[in-house]
Amino acid sequence: MIQKLIENIKKTKAPIVVGLDPMLSYIPEQIQKSAFAEYGETLEGAAEAVWQYNKRIVDAVYDLIPAVKPQIAMYEQFGLPGLAAFKKTVDYCKEKDLVVIGDVKRGDIGSTSAAYAAAHLGRVAVGSQMLTPFGEDFATVNPYLGTDGIKPFLDVCREEKKGIFILVKTSNPSSGEFQDRRIADPAADALPQTSGDSRRNEAGGKPLYEIVGEKVAEWATSCMGDTYSYVGAVVGATYPEMGKVLRRVMPKSFILVPGYGAQGGKAKDLVHYFNEDGLGAIVNSSRGIIAAYKQEKYASYGAEHFAEASRAAVVDMIGDINHALEQRSECD
Amino acid sequence: MIQKLIENIKKTKAPIVVGLDPMLSYIPEQIQKSAFAEYGETLEGAAEAVWQYNKRIVDAVYDLIPAVKPQIAMYEQFGLPGLAAFKKTVDYCKEKDLVVIGDVKRGDIGSTSAAYAAAHLGRVAVGSQMLTPFGEDFATVNPYLGTDGIKPFLDVCREEKKGIFILVKTSNPSSGEFQDRRIADPAADALPQTSGDSRRNEAGGKPLYEIVGEKVAEWATSCMGDTYSYVGAVVGATYPEMGKVLRRVMPKSFILVPGYGAQGGKAKDLVHYFNEDGLGAIVNSSRGIIAAYKQEKYASYGAEHFAEASRAAVVDMIGDINHALEQRSECD
Repeated sequence: MIQKLIENIKKTKAPIVVGLDPMLSYIPEQIQKSAFAEYGETLEGAAEAVWQYNKRIVDAVYDLIPAVKPQIAMYEQFGLPGLAAFKKTVDYCKEKDLVVIGDVKRGDIGSTSAAYAAAHLGRVAVGSQMLTPFGEDFATVNPYLGTDGIKPFLDVCREEKKGIFILVKTSNPSSGEFQDRRIADPAADALPQTSGDSRRNEAGGKPLYEIVGEKVAEWATSCMGDTYSYVGAVVGATYPEMGKVLRRVMPKSFILVPGYGAQGGKAKDLVHYFNEDGLGAIVNSSRGIIAAYKQEKYASYGAEHFAEASRAAVVDMIGDINHALEQRSECD
Repeated sequence: MIQKLIENIKKTKAPIVVGLDPMLSYIPEQIQKSAFAEYGETLEGAAEAVWQYNKRIVDAVYDLIPAVKPQIAMYEQFGLPGLAAFKKTVDYCKEKDLVVIGDVKRGDIGSTSAAYAAAHLGRVAVGSQMLTPFGEDFATVNPYLGTDGIKPFLDVCREEKKGIFILVKTSNPSSGEFQDRRIADPAADALPQTSGDSRRNEAGGKPLYEIVGEKVAEWATSCMGDTYSYVGAVVGATYPEMGKVLRRVMPKSFILVPGYGAQGGKAKDLVHYFNEDGLGAIVNSSRGIIAAYKQEKYASYGAEHFAEASRAAVVDMIGDINHALEQRSECD
């Protein structure tokens, strides 16, 4: 699936992903009204509104983009009907030939992690049948539990040619609370110093995100596609200096980059998340695309034409990132 | 809900929780056959088998125990029908007056974490309605993203009187890969040294799990019930020395203890997870209870009487843990 992601990126010339993270407050009143008219103010009604909203956006942008990233929490909050809308969205995006990254941030151990991997990337045995529960192409995974939590995902990735993005350095303000802590133990000192900078000596150790990044690089090597690994990483757009280091630490991993736009990440800061082949990163925008019509810049579309506003925002985002990438190559 | 958990523990004299983590391979053939006869070898068929199995076990043990802990991955692997069986199990256990700990290990940031908190512990606004998506009493939460990921859960805990257990030190063999890394940065040195031991000097810093434990203690203080906090922690039975330290670091938090039995944790090692009031910990067993009939010890029950085997295993587990606790008080 990493090959398919790369093909889609080359075809669209758009190293971006649209985050399908619908909040009811984003959804134009007309869509909500008509869903509630059919299903009442129920979880089913909310899920129907979410699905109609997603469908309109996907229809408006699918030819421009390589991938979407539905955030499952936004569906899970509407219970079973919400998760049915998640599944419908995954299926619909796959019909449209988009790569689907399930932003599920799952992570557990042993047979439990294996169950999550089957749920989102693999198949599950029921009697003599092998069935597909949710069927995303990629999933995001939390590394806090260590290799025991990751290995079952690697097994499924190899078997099904699917992929994962492991949280390394997240985009949020408090991500440093644990992720930036400097590691002092001998095991860390014994690791090769891949980043090539002097920060270890300055503050007595590599930060945890770098240790996690090194583990990602190790897992990535064990799970290679043709040029990139099935194992990628999440590194927030809001920490470009760390992104630069982590790019070198994990050369074979695609980096999924949240935090562009609404969270403050700028295109010029993101060029170092890419490798010299122009690949290796995929930048996510959620609210900035799906709720574009609420921004002053796209307000003229109005709520009625929200999907066209999303399309315009996608075009602008692709232009913004490609412009920054071109400027980098000119400077090189 | 922490009050209710404490009341249930006092009433049953059983500081234990039964993990409802059904694998198809645990479920007696007869139950699978009859579910497949009705629904075919489908996700619906698997979900029906899971539900029938759970119901029989809950019916057999509910009067002996304070709480259950369904592991959502085991349901998620059967897609939407699986998650419907999860919801049915949660509802049924609540009817039986059990406290339900959703072992969901969710964790994200900002509005996304808020959506997970609403999904599992809270309510969600749909038009003028406030609806309950899954409605567990507690949820397990992953701390890797820092305070941004935890705060939305704290808000819901306060509002709905629900609770969370934050992963601090997990029970799996590779949990030390990141969780045991020793932290060297100045911020860590500035923290109060709560553990009172000399390990920091020995190896140049506190381990990450202790730093996370200190954060849990801080969050716990901001979210208190009468005697214990709504904010608990997960500390594996397989690391008793660390459990001893973490008990002191997080005095107001209940510790949810996985890893007893099948994973190797022994009752005598667990006494230090409890406070002197005899409370403060709740020990989980999953496979050891729900698949008891597969153990030599309970084999005489046979697959047909699997639920009675589970009841016998619960009685034995309660005896085992209470015996260890009594021995501790005698030594004191």
